[in-house]
Amino acid sequence: MKKELKIFCAGSNPALTSAIADVLQLEQSPLKMSRFSNDNISVQILENVRERDVFLVQSLTTPVSEHLMKMLITMDALRSASARRITAVIPYYSYARSDKKDAPRISITARLIADLLKTAGADRVLTMDLHSPQVHGFFSMPVDHLTATVLIADYFRKKPGSGNMVVVATDAGGAKRAGRFAQTLNIPIAIVDKRRLSDTEVTQSGLIGNVKGKDCIIFDDEIATGSTILETMKTLSSAGARKIYLSAVHGVLSGDAVPRLREAGMEELVITDTVDIPEEKRLKNMTVLSVAPLLAEAIRRIHTGESIGEIFPH
Amino acid sequence: MKKELKIFCAGSNPALTSAIADVLQLEQSPLKMSRFSNDNISVQILENVRERDVFLVQSLTTPVSEHLMKMLITMDALRSASARRITAVIPYYSYARSDKKDAPRISITARLIADLLKTAGADRVLTMDLHSPQVHGFFSMPVDHLTATVLIADYFRKKPGSGNMVVVATDAGGAKRAGRFAQTLNIPIAIVDKRRLSDTEVTQSGLIGNVKGKDCIIFDDEIATGSTILETMKTLSSAGARKIYLSAVHGVLSGDAVPRLREAGMEELVITDTVDIPEEKRLKNMTVLSVAPLLAEAIRRIHTGESIGEIFPH
Amino acid sequence: MKKELKIFCAGSNPALTSAIADVLQLEQSPLKMSRFSNDNISVQILENVRERDVFLVQSLTTPVSEHLMKMLITMDALRSASARRITAVIPYYSYARSDKKDAPRISITARLIADLLKTAGADRVLTMDLHSPQVHGFFSMPVDHLTATVLIADYFRKKPGSGNMVVVATDAGGAKRAGRFAQTLNIPIAIVDKRRLSDTEVTQSGLIGNVKGKDCIIFDDEIATGSTILETMKTLSSAGARKIYLSAVHGVLSGDAVPRLREAGMEELVITDTVDIPEEKRLKNMTVLSVAPLLAEAIRRIHTGESIGEIFPH
Amino acid sequence: MKKELKIFCAGSNPALTSAIADVLQLEQSPLKMSRFSNDNISVQILENVRERDVFLVQSLTTPVSEHLMKMLITMDALRSASARRITAVIPYYSYARSDKKDAPRISITARLIADLLKTAGADRVLTMDLHSPQVHGFFSMPVDHLTATVLIADYFRKKPGSGNMVVVATDAGGAKRAGRFAQTLNIPIAIVDKRRLSDTEVTQSGLIGNVKGKDCIIFDDEIATGSTILETMKTLSSAGARKIYLSAVHGVLSGDAVPRLREAGMEELVITDTVDIPEEKRLKNMTVLSVAPLLAEAIRRIHTGESIGEIFPH
Amino acid sequence: MKKELKIFCAGSNPALTSAIADVLQLEQSPLKMSRFSNDNISVQILENVRERDVFLVQSLTTPVSEHLMKMLITMDALRSASARRITAVIPYYSYARSDKKDAPRISITARLIADLLKTAGADRVLTMDLHSPQVHGFFSMPVDHLTATVLIADYFRKKPGSGNMVVVATDAGGAKRAGRFAQTLNIPIAIVDKRRLSDTEVTQSGLIGNVKGKDCIIFDDEIATGSTILETMKTLSSAGARKIYLSAVHGVLSGDAVPRLREAGMEELVITDTVDIPEEKRLKNMTVLSVAPLLAEAIRRIHTGESIGEIFPH
Amino acid sequence: MKKELKIFCAGSNPALTSAIADVLQLEQSPLKMSRFSNDNISVQILENVRERDVFLVQSLTTPVSEHLMKMLITMDALRSASARRITAVIPYYSYARSDKKDAPRISITARLIADLLKTAGADRVLTMDLHSPQVHGFFSMPVDHLTATVLIADYFRKKPGSGNMVVVATDAGGAKRAGRFAQTLNIPIAIVDKRRLSDTEVTQSGLIGNVKGKDCIIFDDEIATGSTILETMKTLSSAGARKIYLSAVHGVLSGDAVPRLREAGMEELVITDTVDIPEEKRLKNMTVLSVAPLLAEAIRRIHTGESIGEIFPH
Repeated sequence: MKKELKIFCAGSNPALTSAIADVLQLEQSPLKMSRFSNDNISVQILENVRERDVFLVQSLTTPVSEHLMKMLITMDALRSASARRITAVIPYYSYARSDKKDAPRISITARLIADLLKTAGADRVLTMDLHSPQVHGFFSMPVDHLTATVLIADYFRKKPGSGNMVVVATDAGGAKRAGRFAQTLNIPIAIVDKRRLSDTEVTQSGLIGNVKGKDCIIFDDEIATGSTILETMKTLSSAGARKIYLSAVHGVLSGDAVPRLREAGMEELVITDTVDIPEEKRLKNMTVLSVAPLLAEAIRRIHTGESIGEIFPH
Repeated sequence: MKKELKIFCAGSNPALTSAIADVLQLEQSPLKMSRFSNDNISVQILENVRERDVFLVQSLTTPVSEHLMKMLITMDALRSASARRITAVIPYYSYARSDKKDAPRISITARLIADLLKTAGADRVLTMDLHSPQVHGFFSMPVDHLTATVLIADYFRKKPGSGNMVVVATDAGGAKRAGRFAQTLNIPIAIVDKRRLSDTEVTQSGLIGNVKGKDCIIFDDEIATGSTILETMKTLSSAGARKIYLSAVHGVLSGDAVPRLREAGMEELVITDTVDIPEEKRLKNMTVLSVAPLLAEAIRRIHTGESIGEIFPH
Repeated sequence: MKKELKIFCAGSNPALTSAIADVLQLEQSPLKMSRFSNDNISVQILENVRERDVFLVQSLTTPVSEHLMKMLITMDALRSASARRITAVIPYYSYARSDKKDAPRISITARLIADLLKTAGADRVLTMDLHSPQVHGFFSMPVDHLTATVLIADYFRKKPGSGNMVVVATDAGGAKRAGRFAQTLNIPIAIVDKRRLSDTEVTQSGLIGNVKGKDCIIFDDEIATGSTILETMKTLSSAGARKIYLSAVHGVLSGDAVPRLREAGMEELVITDTVDIPEEKRLKNMTVLSVAPLLAEAIRRIHTGESIGEIFPH
Repeated sequence: MKKELKIFCAGSNPALTSAIADVLQLEQSPLKMSRFSNDNISVQILENVRERDVFLVQSLTTPVSEHLMKMLITMDALRSASARRITAVIPYYSYARSDKKDAPRISITARLIADLLKTAGADRVLTMDLHSPQVHGFFSMPVDHLTATVLIADYFRKKPGSGNMVVVATDAGGAKRAGRFAQTLNIPIAIVDKRRLSDTEVTQSGLIGNVKGKDCIIFDDEIATGSTILETMKTLSSAGARKIYLSAVHGVLSGDAVPRLREAGMEELVITDTVDIPEEKRLKNMTVLSVAPLLAEAIRRIHTGESIGEIFPH
Repeated sequence: MKKELKIFCAGSNPALTSAIADVLQLEQSPLKMSRFSNDNISVQILENVRERDVFLVQSLTTPVSEHLMKMLITMDALRSASARRITAVIPYYSYARSDKKDAPRISITARLIADLLKTAGADRVLTMDLHSPQVHGFFSMPVDHLTATVLIADYFRKKPGSGNMVVVATDAGGAKRAGRFAQTLNIPIAIVDKRRLSDTEVTQSGLIGNVKGKDCIIFDDEIATGSTILETMKTLSSAGARKIYLSAVHGVLSGDAVPRLREAGMEELVITDTVDIPEEKRLKNMTVLSVAPLLAEAIRRIHTGESIGEIFPH
Repeated sequence: MKKELKIFCAGSNPALTSAIADVLQLEQSPLKMSRFSNDNISVQILENVRERDVFLVQSLTTPVSEHLMKMLITMDALRSASARRITAVIPYYSYARSDKKDAPRISITARLIADLLKTAGADRVLTMDLHSPQVHGFFSMPVDHLTATVLIADYFRKKPGSGNMVVVATDAGGAKRAGRFAQTLNIPIAIVDKRRLSDTEVTQSGLIGNVKGKDCIIFDDEIATGSTILETMKTLSSAGARKIYLSAVHGVLSGDAVPRLREAGMEELVITDTVDIPEEKRLKNMTVLSVAPLLAEAIRRIHTGESIGEIFPH
């Protein structure tokens, strides 16, 4: 139906984009990014995209503002170059965490970014494991929202002793996500009941559920500094947990998160490549599953008009 | 700043609107609703609203489509009659439950309704206890989102023996709400870990947390048929719970929900009047707290430009 | 050009939709409508519609608000499921009667509904015999506006004695429609000159034109309770009319309209199936002409890009 | 509430604007219109309009395209000069005649112009006697739609022998307007039943209603060339009419319309000044009633937020 | 990809449109323009355009308002007749001269017109030599902006003695355009340094650059009355210039511009046919280069999705 | 008219904002900017802004993407906190340089940013010395566009020997700006005629105008690396210029621009504080004029509805 599919990368995920292009047996299309002396970004699309079905891959990873602006400017250039359809492929939509107004006079930035993407020319969005599924509704265009939960569950299922595991949520807000993950693996859950004592003090009042003698998988959508996880690991250890696995879809891993978690005794860290993790950062005890096959299949189906909902259980 | 504040009711909450008007020491403004012989709705505003600051109260209660259409048509009439600003006051926004895409090819109707409200002329929204706080971000206009949690917690705090209570969430998805409620009361939580065995069978695999000898408050945003609650009550009884209180902000109470819950041994049902509950349905063991003072104060502050965030802790 | 045409029914016209699908030699596509316990409507499209050219049939018949909301929610689901184009097929657009501001502070609801349809995702509209042709201009998207006038005129033309007939408009506002219908049949018209004496009293000051010894066809766009028609029948009888036929495109027929009209001596009632008329309501003296062939041909032409204006004389 | 009201004229109605300003005891605000050598129009507002409540008077009279463009450019200049609110005062909205699609592939230009006005910055519209009342619904902003019917009826009511008059519509499409006018005067109506024999031939098949020995008022929304009226006058004379008055709200009077009508024996032509009629064109037998007091009162009420619907019976 | 390309002319450039159609080996598609007696414009498209890829040619030449309105109404008719895509081909976009706010409270009309085109249904624009390249950014849709500079430069390059030429800008604002033209020809530039002495007096304080004994080409985007050029010619003559050529893309040539320029001793006037120049106005010393091949090639590439940027050096 | 004026700074210009607040005798309003561990920006407005007239100061200086995102998120927070009007005060709108499409498939980013500002909630813009005046037309909201040219001209006028000065533009594109500046000082201009020999080589083919024995002011809208200026300084020196002053409104001064320029022998660098220049960077030979009084006066007038055009000659 659509003429030629084209795939571009706006800078955040070169390896993932390349892997997707490989699965699709396509050449990644070239663009030129430069910077004027006043720090303005300049983007030039280096191939004709008239009437083409264009997919632009960009995660909102550090530096987030830069990556976002590069995506917006690239989309504007694509649109004005007469691309027929532009799909923003955003494996990690970090601002999804700003999804509600839990303090006065703040911005629900996940909605703002959705609107900015539309203003800049996005016709549709392909994303993965949004912090809350409601963020889907922030977009005024069609969204395909995939999950890597099954991919990660499959990985753990193959481990010996997976029957003796328990999934742990680091607070009540993560109970639902942990519950769905636990159900996929058919194992129980436990939840840390974190209480805020005052504006400045947080305490973990205890653990709901049983972890004694069990291997725990602390599961979340993203891991950044790992501070909350460190607290949870202590709580689990005190409660008699055996091994502690950490897993998340989005491996933000800011600062010295990985060394600290390893020091604290994590058994293994299992994440995906929605956030780019350069080779030198891929340390021991760290497993990076690739979402490239999932994204590639979704892109193929979007392009040809085949069903996605029937394939991916999100 | 704004000329005269006017308050209208589009049919769903006559008693609440009247109570709000009383608090504000205003006369409720009149409108005429009729129906043509082809079932079309007709609305006429019976007072001049030019340049007025208008508040239109309507909950999306049964019959929901009728109530929604009446609100949309009334807003269109107000706008075309040159109201300066129209605030949709929606104490119970029932479609907030359709807030994500948990099956293929469904509508995130909570977003659709938000867009329809804007199309029909709403300039802002005042609502209460949305099913998930993310629904706030579905609106492209300013929203004031109040909560009745404090009101309900205050009620329970005054009960003798409130120190021995535990808040129960009926599934992992409600853990966060229950947790915040429990924190307000400074008591523990317990969670029912409900598992879906297949597309047609659901089982409750157990209870996480301790309820033995405790008075339980099953707390949710809304109670409709009460089926899930009935299951939870059985689970709690088996687990040695003493009294079981039920509480929710929105008392939808469809069909014979209340008799069935009373029969099942509930101690008391505590709800608010965001959903209209006629006098004849206000039975024994049922406490209806009024949100009129909260809404009235919010309306007053919206009208005068005073801060709301500083007063209401949402 | 477009991939596969798909046709859905949102509930109001199952028989008509089925007849259209038959003419087009298509299977009607399935969707599932259900209702949550809080009365919210839920719609799921049960077939892949990505990049498909979708036609959704729904008349705004009783219960109008329900039928409208079902159409809006279904369109939202179709759009978010990536349908390439959505045509709202609305055989009877009842709110077209709310097309002007003939009282202060009312809503021109025909325009509001047009805007709501756009908000919910309609790309174009296919409709029939709008109350006034100006309603076409309320839509900000392409509209194909068909008429069943020719279909009905053909029916009467074949009756013996059709040369001795006269078309009657029940008031001055219907004179133009009656005039066009009369011209198609090449017969004269007569008009009831209805005068409003005060806000509460209406009188019919007389009949303009000659009906003595003639067979009359009272012709309108829709018949609901039939009260006005009953008055007109009396006026015609007094003026010496012979037989009285009643005809309208949209047979709303609310309450006991048909029995009352039959009792009053109508010769025959001729309508179409733009409003669903279940078998048990299709009584003697009542002829229901089907618009399915017209709508099917229009749908085929919209899908293939053939001219409609050249075929249908509207 | 609003700062200073300002009134501008975009060129079509200098006398009317001046009369409105007089009633309002305001100075008309100045602007400069010029033309570049490439025929581009240039408009400069010559007074500060920041935060002012601006009314811009312009009828869409000959040359229509010029007058429209001047209005659009002036509104754009006003908006960009930070006017707080811009009301387009359009006494004669000539394109209202293009209000439906009565031939294939034409534009419903009355809707297009409404959208252009919005694009150029109009916040609201004040207009008079639209060709059909449905045109009101073409605007997506508040419209105040006045009528001069009462003004004209009052004029005729004061004539001796007004009880012996009959209102005549030149075709079935005008029956409703004539009917409302007749009702105001409490006199009967008659209608010319014009039939189109083929695409090129039109015949008037006769007159419905009685005019013998009566003084007729041929009443329409506008009179342009007067050709149809000339035909109607012949029909009326043949049917025994006595005097023939002509009346319309909008006196377009193109070409030699007035001399031809006078020659044909019209008793008097009664119109208003919604279309500018220079002194030299105001001949004998021609009465021009001014709508300035109506428009001025409406402007005053729009500015102060007083009700208009309660005063003007439209 | 797209069905059948269709090309229409809205009245301003019949010869150019016909030449474009010839290059593309297409029949120009017919439309009917007429005028009602109230001066309203009426347009009917006389061919089916459903799903067609339509190009509408119209320059904003005298009478500008008429030509613009005809284009807007034609586009509205095309859109409502279900054209798949409408490209506004505007060889001369005269309002581009109103591109900035160089006086208080004026309209940046070039932006307004861009917005009006969008409102009326334009999906894209194809234009030539905008007064300033920034005007491209006024459009919120894709624009292909061609230049005839190369065409004109080629013409001069072939003249004997072109090596001894100098390009002259009539003021500092034209220096950049003249500079680019000079660079194409690889010859020097000179600039008239025009100073405004007061609001009413302008003086030319002198010439920057050397023209003594040289053949000058006064080059601009458009020539209207030629008054500025006449001044410049005097300045050049005083400075010892030999021959003086005049050249511009857009030959507006209002009033008696050409005779005056010829009288003043211009050697030759070289323009293009973006502005229609009827045969009788094509005098001696006047060369009209046709842009039809450029526009035709661009239209072909837009239709097929081939690159334009790679071909045309704008 | 408007309640309380409030002024916020989004981070780029703390000193300028503070100076503006001082002139207006206001306290600058507080906001809190923080960063989540995934690099997301978080903004909280720390004062009630309901119904307030808010001015948010932010220049698009290095790091541009960060500063832009902070402005967008802050505006979203202000809007959702019910600010009555938000004016984006952007002293230096750096992306104005991306104002045209001078290469294929690039973004006219100055337009994109204008649209993003609108999406995020800006109601109006106050800016200074846009790279080209046409950029004003990129905004779809009212813009007040001030210039610091007069401020700088006043500074030079007071220098001894200012009568012997000449203004130099570094290329033809800057001729117009230099011309206006020269006219204010009533001195001549000279222009460097820079030619591009090929895609990679640029040469300066010479100087148009006379600088021998004169003091030159190289004048531009912004100075970043200063490379072009260095070339121009050489050209001027070769041509016999005496002192060389450098001046620009926006002192971007990236890298070691200032030392290099000083080394090259500039007499003095005169800029303004539209770009924040910390105390330690304010070296000898460098004069920073403050635009705070201009911006403060404009803000005051915007707030009170007084004319700006009449005061500032832009």
